Amino acid sequence: MAAYVVGHKNPDTDSITAAIAVADLMTKRGIEAVAAAQGKTNPETDFVLGKFGVKAPEIVTDATDKKIILVDHSDLAQSLENLSKGEILGVVDHHKLGDVTTPNPLEMWVWPVGCTGTIISSMYDFYGIEMPKAIAGIVLCAILSDTVMFKSPTCTPEDKKACDKLAKIAGVTDMMALGMEMFKVKSAVDGTPIRDLVYRDYKDFNMSGTGVGIGQLEVVDLSILDKYKAELQADIVKVKAEKGLHSVFLLLTDIMKEGSEMLIASDDPSVVEKAFGLKPEGTSVWMPGVMSRKKDVVPKFEKVFGA
Amino acid sequence: MAAYVVGHKNPDTDSITAAIAVADLMTKRGIEAVAAAQGKTNPETDFVLGKFGVKAPEIVTDATDKKIILVDHSDLAQSLENLSKGEILGVVDHHKLGDVTTPNPLEMWVWPVGCTGTIISSMYDFYGIEMPKAIAGIVLCAILSDTVMFKSPTCTPEDKKACDKLAKIAGVTDMMALGMEMFKVKSAVDGTPIRDLVYRDYKDFNMSGTGVGIGQLEVVDLSILDKYKAELQADIVKVKAEKGLHSVFLLLTDIMKEGSEMLIASDDPSVVEKAFGLKPEGTSVWMPGVMSRKKDVVPKFEKVFGA
Repeated sequence: MAAYVVGHKNPDTDSITAAIAVADLMTKRGIEAVAAAQGKTNPETDFVLGKFGVKAPEIVTDATDKKIILVDHSDLAQSLENLSKGEILGVVDHHKLGDVTTPNPLEMWVWPVGCTGTIISSMYDFYGIEMPKAIAGIVLCAILSDTVMFKSPTCTPEDKKACDKLAKIAGVTDMMALGMEMFKVKSAVDGTPIRDLVYRDYKDFNMSGTGVGIGQLEVVDLSILDKYKAELQADIVKVKAEKGLHSVFLLLTDIMKEGSEMLIASDDPSVVEKAFGLKPEGTSVWMPGVMSRKKDVVPKFEKVFGA
Repeated sequence: MAAYVVGHKNPDTDSITAAIAVADLMTKRGIEAVAAAQGKTNPETDFVLGKFGVKAPEIVTDATDKKIILVDHSDLAQSLENLSKGEILGVVDHHKLGDVTTPNPLEMWVWPVGCTGTIISSMYDFYGIEMPKAIAGIVLCAILSDTVMFKSPTCTPEDKKACDKLAKIAGVTDMMALGMEMFKVKSAVDGTPIRDLVYRDYKDFNMSGTGVGIGQLEVVDLSILDKYKAELQADIVKVKAEKGLHSVFLLLTDIMKEGSEMLIASDDPSVVEKAFGLKPEGTSVWMPGVMSRKKDVVPKFEKVFGA
């Protein structure tokens, strides 16, 4: 039985391309594996897969009786249903260590780098396996996306090194042009249902027992979101109620200005000031320099909710 | 502030030598680190360190305000006090994934191999750093110990390959002779307090909320334990009561006969038959082929206690 390689809920480009790449690598190492995803691909990922002619993974949502390799997450809340009824063979991730546990020894590649793709690039080297051209292309895009073209504070020298290597394999001569093309697709919001925007890159966290949802929309220019802000704010209030969460935050990130506006729906909005030392006006606050949910936002909220 | 590299409670040779090796490797990578241990070294480890002229790590039991790198475990029950008040930079381990979590991204090297030392040997290669001769010697001994000289079911081809490489670096021409010498030291029980024997390689597990302690004594010939069995049995009953556990099991492993006698102290001794399909006589049962707590014993109990 082939193992399923699967990223987090509401898959982003890293989760999808990491699943595809790790499935390729594992199969070539003799551990038969297929790529899977917990949901359909977003417009950015569709652009990336289309660009390099790779098809989207099959949808899998339940781990029962399956062999599983997790990529791009290690939190139960972000993972498959019934994860404990499957067998976890491995984890490849670049986030904090979550609450997934296993009854058996497993293989884990977890590094504090900007993107799972960077680790995968080194794994191919480590096992002496050649990365296919198309997979190098999509993994390159994942790193450019996760590091916001090297501007995110999560970006490390390893990420840049991996991109140089992958661009050569993929035959990409101008990776920054490719990145801008991708971010323009990501910025497109007109005609998209509001809920899809909230969920485009959204994750639930269990912070010391408190349920917190954090979404992020990255755009090349924040002004394109002006006419949607009121609707986005109304919708995160709804998401909070529907999911029974303490708080839902939506980061509207301007990748050129390098900062984020945070929209707030919370039982206790003072957590924002406690975490960031910035006073919201109404239900929103501009956060200069805040680019990364993982590095700039989650640890600060974890501290406040854990206190 | 240097990071402390530390293995599990009741440290065995792998926990001690992994701490020493990872501290060396990290420091050479530019991350200042010192080896630590949660308790004093056992006779086997003293023999190994003495053989290669390496001194024992300092004792550290509390993580508060420290940077920490965990080796040879990822379970809170086996780790430092106040782990959440320290900062975990990394984990190097070969066990099942435990319940340690982190608020920040970290570096993890976890492989399903017989010994942490095997992973560390590859980490030196990966980072292009030369392993010092003495460290190669002690890590070689750790692999020989954890894999019971390649006889344990946990032993993988990677473990053997690592030993070949490490023996060359350490200048060890007959690794099996070194292994037998080490196991004879490990087998020595005369004059040792009974509680020290129970705790020589003892771990507490949280199995779906149930507290279970499992110790193991490896000897080159089980008959040398005959005169101590009654005292060992009486003492695990005491350990169980003192720690408020559901069960304490002590494996008396005969590395030449390749099997273990299990001594049982349990609120519900039927768990042993449920887990292994072997009926104890009184408070003891012989288990042919059972060599490894991790591979042969823990998963079976996890299943029964999780059901």
